Amino acid sequence: MPARLAELAVRFGCELRGDPDTLVDRVAPLQDAGPGAVSFLANPRYRRHLASTRASVVVLDAKTAPECPVAALVARNPYATYARIAQVLYPTPPVVPGRDSSAVVEAGVEVDPTAAIGAQAYVARGVRIGPRASVGPGSVVLGDAQIGADTRLVARVTLGPGTRIGRRCILQPGCVIGADGFGHAPDRDGYVKVPQVGSVVIGDDVEVGSNSTIDRGAIGDTVIGDGVKIDNLVQVGHNVRIGEHTVIAGCVGVSGSVTIGRRCMLGGQVGVTGHLEICDDVALTGRTMVASSILKPGVYSSGLTADDAARFRRNAVRFNQLDELAKRLRRLEGSAGPGGKGDDDE
Amino acid sequence: MPARLAELAVRFGCELRGDPDTLVDRVAPLQDAGPGAVSFLANPRYRRHLASTRASVVVLDAKTAPECPVAALVARNPYATYARIAQVLYPTPPVVPGRDSSAVVEAGVEVDPTAAIGAQAYVARGVRIGPRASVGPGSVVLGDAQIGADTRLVARVTLGPGTRIGRRCILQPGCVIGADGFGHAPDRDGYVKVPQVGSVVIGDDVEVGSNSTIDRGAIGDTVIGDGVKIDNLVQVGHNVRIGEHTVIAGCVGVSGSVTIGRRCMLGGQVGVTGHLEICDDVALTGRTMVASSILKPGVYSSGLTADDAARFRRNAVRFNQLDELAKRLRRLEGSAGPGGKGDDDE
Amino acid sequence: MPARLAELAVRFGCELRGDPDTLVDRVAPLQDAGPGAVSFLANPRYRRHLASTRASVVVLDAKTAPECPVAALVARNPYATYARIAQVLYPTPPVVPGRDSSAVVEAGVEVDPTAAIGAQAYVARGVRIGPRASVGPGSVVLGDAQIGADTRLVARVTLGPGTRIGRRCILQPGCVIGADGFGHAPDRDGYVKVPQVGSVVIGDDVEVGSNSTIDRGAIGDTVIGDGVKIDNLVQVGHNVRIGEHTVIAGCVGVSGSVTIGRRCMLGGQVGVTGHLEICDDVALTGRTMVASSILKPGVYSSGLTADDAARFRRNAVRFNQLDELAKRLRRLEGSAGPGGKGDDDE
Repeated sequence: MPARLAELAVRFGCELRGDPDTLVDRVAPLQDAGPGAVSFLANPRYRRHLASTRASVVVLDAKTAPECPVAALVARNPYATYARIAQVLYPTPPVVPGRDSSAVVEAGVEVDPTAAIGAQAYVARGVRIGPRASVGPGSVVLGDAQIGADTRLVARVTLGPGTRIGRRCILQPGCVIGADGFGHAPDRDGYVKVPQVGSVVIGDDVEVGSNSTIDRGAIGDTVIGDGVKIDNLVQVGHNVRIGEHTVIAGCVGVSGSVTIGRRCMLGGQVGVTGHLEICDDVALTGRTMVASSILKPGVYSSGLTADDAARFRRNAVRFNQLDELAKRLRRLEGSAGPGGKGDDDE
Repeated sequence: MPARLAELAVRFGCELRGDPDTLVDRVAPLQDAGPGAVSFLANPRYRRHLASTRASVVVLDAKTAPECPVAALVARNPYATYARIAQVLYPTPPVVPGRDSSAVVEAGVEVDPTAAIGAQAYVARGVRIGPRASVGPGSVVLGDAQIGADTRLVARVTLGPGTRIGRRCILQPGCVIGADGFGHAPDRDGYVKVPQVGSVVIGDDVEVGSNSTIDRGAIGDTVIGDGVKIDNLVQVGHNVRIGEHTVIAGCVGVSGSVTIGRRCMLGGQVGVTGHLEICDDVALTGRTMVASSILKPGVYSSGLTADDAARFRRNAVRFNQLDELAKRLRRLEGSAGPGGKGDDDE
Repeated sequence: MPARLAELAVRFGCELRGDPDTLVDRVAPLQDAGPGAVSFLANPRYRRHLASTRASVVVLDAKTAPECPVAALVARNPYATYARIAQVLYPTPPVVPGRDSSAVVEAGVEVDPTAAIGAQAYVARGVRIGPRASVGPGSVVLGDAQIGADTRLVARVTLGPGTRIGRRCILQPGCVIGADGFGHAPDRDGYVKVPQVGSVVIGDDVEVGSNSTIDRGAIGDTVIGDGVKIDNLVQVGHNVRIGEHTVIAGCVGVSGSVTIGRRCMLGGQVGVTGHLEICDDVALTGRTMVASSILKPGVYSSGLTADDAARFRRNAVRFNQLDELAKRLRRLEGSAGPGGKGDDDE
């Protein structure tokens, strides 16, 4: 859907440097863009592509605007402004109301007349589907689940019994929300299954990535706050609570009964041990493992990064001697007299 | 399904402190429970909620029982006893025999008359489905697979050709059992696919979590022992063998041809390199990476835990100098004379 | 499909030591093989099983051939030769052309008459399916996707809109190719969704494992080169580019806008931070985290390996003191005079 630069500038409160009547109809990266394309510069890493871009317009901040060889939309937050412009150029296709003839919908399901149920879907008894919501092809929605207005299950999504999804959520293909969590009580002869009787409650404007899994509560609910964004292949255990506007990157594992605050950022492959609390405004860099509660906002890490394999191996051998090395250092300090003594915490 | 406390005490061998005629009909956490609810105390972390609980009865051990402000069911193993009580209050709905009219079942499939095949399922030739087993909606069961009595494929499960699942298993949504493993032989011009001709054999009382994957053997079978419990998003490679009653938490990766013993516990995000052996009764804490066989029972770790990011970065820089630091320490010890010498292993 | 040893030797250029008329019809591991079976020896770890094997023939190299107690097919690359022989004995069943009556195929789909569409599949408008390609049961192929000749979607695969898959690819069950990537621009009140308008382009001879996910480009495409092999539960972010013949083991996470070269090998659970470059011929051992570009071919690591938990914990405590320990070491060196001074980089 094409738009004039003037219209975009007014709508999103940008300063326009260039011809207000230029039409744009698509987006492209700085280095690949041609006439008609909107590009953006937010990550300084890509600044080197600015001088040679052939985009019709670039969304950028006031600082880099003077370097822009083409029209510029100057924004306080170029990435968010770009996102909003892209939403105008690529509007989400409206949901086409109705039920594919191959879908199986049990008796007693409440489907809003403006909602859609796709091919090969299955919707069990007691489910409620809100206005303009969409149950994509191959999805399975189990008993008594609720799907809020404008929420889309893209394809092959599974909702467990009683799951409640808010409004304007996007559930990507293959995600499983509300299946049993991992509850097994050890006993003499193995394990006894602990019935998982809670549910999952998801707020508004939540996105869950492809093949991610969010378990139903064991006892009480698993709760995902408004605006939470979860990437692909993320595991969220039973009775986890995630605060509003927290974002979780791919391959993260959050164990059961963890509470995560608002506006947190979990990098890729982060792991969180069970029954902990992470307060608001905590950032965990990629691969961090959290094994005790974090009660102070800030940035936390625990992931070592790639080094030459042979050198890494030599250092890893020394890691396994670290306590011994520290003790030897202390002995040396002792023999060097009080002046040489360190502040070892032993 | 409501129950009297007297009945629960007798059935599960607990001492009852309280009114035997009290009826309970649900479970709830200590802090949220009200009249009619059973709660439990197993993790000392939650003891602080005991004094103010409004549950009708709490399952706990003899040591904490005196602090219980309401009726108590005193058990040697409160968590397992709670699990059994919850199974009484929330019985698994019986399988309703029959085949949904939307299911596609090829000729020559043997389905026990008490088994169920759900909506949108597909069952290929030669499959055998045992008594009271259930193939949930959207599942795909490929040729010659066998499903034992009372086993449930919850929804959207895939079984590869020839997979054999034991009795009373639970396969959570999206799990894939018996697809090809990762077998590619390097050759001059890339890789040659190694046909994966083995199968997967799963014992009785096994649970596999949502979106987990267990590959068929490359040559010979992948074998999962009785009572094994596998959480979500776990990868089990071809020809892995897992002993009875081993439990594997979420996001674990087990490479091909690994043998894991009985009663092991693998924490979240653990990784095991290929062709290794882990003996019985090994516990691996979260994020541990196993790169050589473990032949002695015990607890093993390798995961660093979260620290302030700036401090972590400084220490990580030093990690990359560790071998050099150790050598400098040794030189100092040498110059300090024989008395200062450590026991470096060089 | 049985074969004579003479035929196999000629076809794959091996030296045959043994009876050329011996028939073989299956493969088996050295220790389990019986008459009629082909086995192989490539990993020295399994050499101990050679002397007692009862296979009809073993594929091995010239060095180990003299120890072989049965017929031998002597090959320069035993594993690749074994793979090719196994392909002869276990030929991929040919695709049976046609469309299952339960499949839903929208108007305007181009399906080659030799292609197959399985039970419970859904194929949206504008899709093109090439000769002998197969859309397995329960798969969902969204609008305008293209599937090349001889490519197989095994079962329950999802292809997002516009995804283009090359020839002879194998997409294992549950994988999701071409869904939205993780694009959310932070703004005052949470996040703005960044429309994901690129696609995924996959070359020829690519394999993608069960439940893996490959995101469509945010802007421009995600590109997977010819011959790339991706294992199970791997996440590939938007706009990633992976060069030809690179292999990626299970549970790996590759963040958005990463470029990986040709012939790289990523071990299990490797993680790669966003916007980086990894050059050709890089090997990353299991669990390595890459947080800056790697521009030199070689082997890289960052994963610590399992140690006794108590000892590991003591060493991990010292890790958190490392910078302090290094400074104390330097002070000692200073007080020991210039001769004791190390080459600290401060």
